[in-house]
Amino acid sequence: MEITSVNNQLIKDMAKLHQKKHRDETSLFLIEGYHLYEEALKMDVIKTIFTTDDIIQGHNVIHVSQSVLEKLAKTNNPQKVICVCEKLKREKINDRVLILEGIQDPGNLGTLLRSALAFDFKTIILDNTVDIYNDKVIRSTQGAMFKLNFIEMGTLDFMNLYRDYTYIGTSLKGEPLESIRALDRVVLILGNEGNGLSLDVLKNTNKNVTIKISEVESLNVGVAGSIIMHHINSNT
Amino acid sequence: MEITSVNNQLIKDMAKLHQKKHRDETSLFLIEGYHLYEEALKMDVIKTIFTTDDIIQGHNVIHVSQSVLEKLAKTNNPQKVICVCEKLKREKINDRVLILEGIQDPGNLGTLLRSALAFDFKTIILDNTVDIYNDKVIRSTQGAMFKLNFIEMGTLDFMNLYRDYTYIGTSLKGEPLESIRALDRVVLILGNEGNGLSLDVLKNTNKNVTIKISEVESLNVGVAGSIIMHHINSNT
Repeated sequence: MEITSVNNQLIKDMAKLHQKKHRDETSLFLIEGYHLYEEALKMDVIKTIFTTDDIIQGHNVIHVSQSVLEKLAKTNNPQKVICVCEKLKREKINDRVLILEGIQDPGNLGTLLRSALAFDFKTIILDNTVDIYNDKVIRSTQGAMFKLNFIEMGTLDFMNLYRDYTYIGTSLKGEPLESIRALDRVVLILGNEGNGLSLDVLKNTNKNVTIKISEVESLNVGVAGSIIMHHINSNT
Repeated sequence: MEITSVNNQLIKDMAKLHQKKHRDETSLFLIEGYHLYEEALKMDVIKTIFTTDDIIQGHNVIHVSQSVLEKLAKTNNPQKVICVCEKLKREKINDRVLILEGIQDPGNLGTLLRSALAFDFKTIILDNTVDIYNDKVIRSTQGAMFKLNFIEMGTLDFMNLYRDYTYIGTSLKGEPLESIRALDRVVLILGNEGNGLSLDVLKNTNKNVTIKISEVESLNVGVAGSIIMHHINSNT
């Protein structure tokens, strides 16, 4: 089977997955390129593969023309494979949790997810962030998202439900990073790029930390979060 | 004086600064928004200010219409002030140097510059990177670039000229980060997003380090570089 028309109904429907609304309605999302394809394959989340690569074969593979591939792609020079995947449904709560409150930049969110997996923070609580199935988020994660557990939930709701964790927030006037030592069950909470954490959250954490910096007002949130997760991973 | 026509010759010339070629020819570049305007003002690099804000006055201020402002802007909803600045000319070599070899993503470059200033790496060697005067780089730096010293130069050329530094590279099979202790004069070298450092560079460093990670192949280069700079800044 080969689809060559960009007006084919299936292609038109799949291209709608570029919009969050349609991803929410169908619980499907798109990924592009060989690296993400291989990661998605391992995790068994691929529903359909659209490709111009003759080598890729299988019951769920649909060969398409270059123009169809480009219609499904968000990048300018797409690699030869685009997959429709089913949204991730694992909701396990691990010993290390990262709560993201209001992160709005797709690159920051993707970077944080990649670092979270690298430093063993495998549960991610999404509190009013940009959509994790946004193409830019997916590209920045480099496949890390397939191995994480996501829950959409308010920060304070989580804190009320799970009381046996040490909660670490970030603030400009907190304790030094080095004051965090050997924690078994820990939750790191990061706030919005412009505003940081909300006051209600800051009041309810066990400790708020500051990374020592000079001459700049703050660090990029992806950098700050990664430095703290690295510190916790290296000291426990 | 107010310019209301997008076809005004000065406006047309200034809009050309969106292209690297014209920035190189004129040694000028554009910045957008109040925060960068304030930072540039402190550093005395502003040549002309184009604004729709009546409060901003001065001999180098040109008031413009909204359509002219939008022609000069790269963002969709620009703040009311856009400045033409002169390129930075400081070439001081500080005790901590960051060499960037082939960094191509504007967001990564901007993030690294912001972290470099925060962790006191004030000299930046640019070896074949994306243009630092690219609008996305400037936005990501959040003004940090005005306080840094930039030199465009090959990595090996720098290493040959400045022999009294400890050179730290990054590799997937290096020594642990914790093995770096108290260094007076240090150069951190970071490589291209896809390929890392070139072999010639890796062979000539004093030490190559690896950040301990699990399940992902690598970290984002902005994150990795920031973690190493933070470590050096905290341990010296």
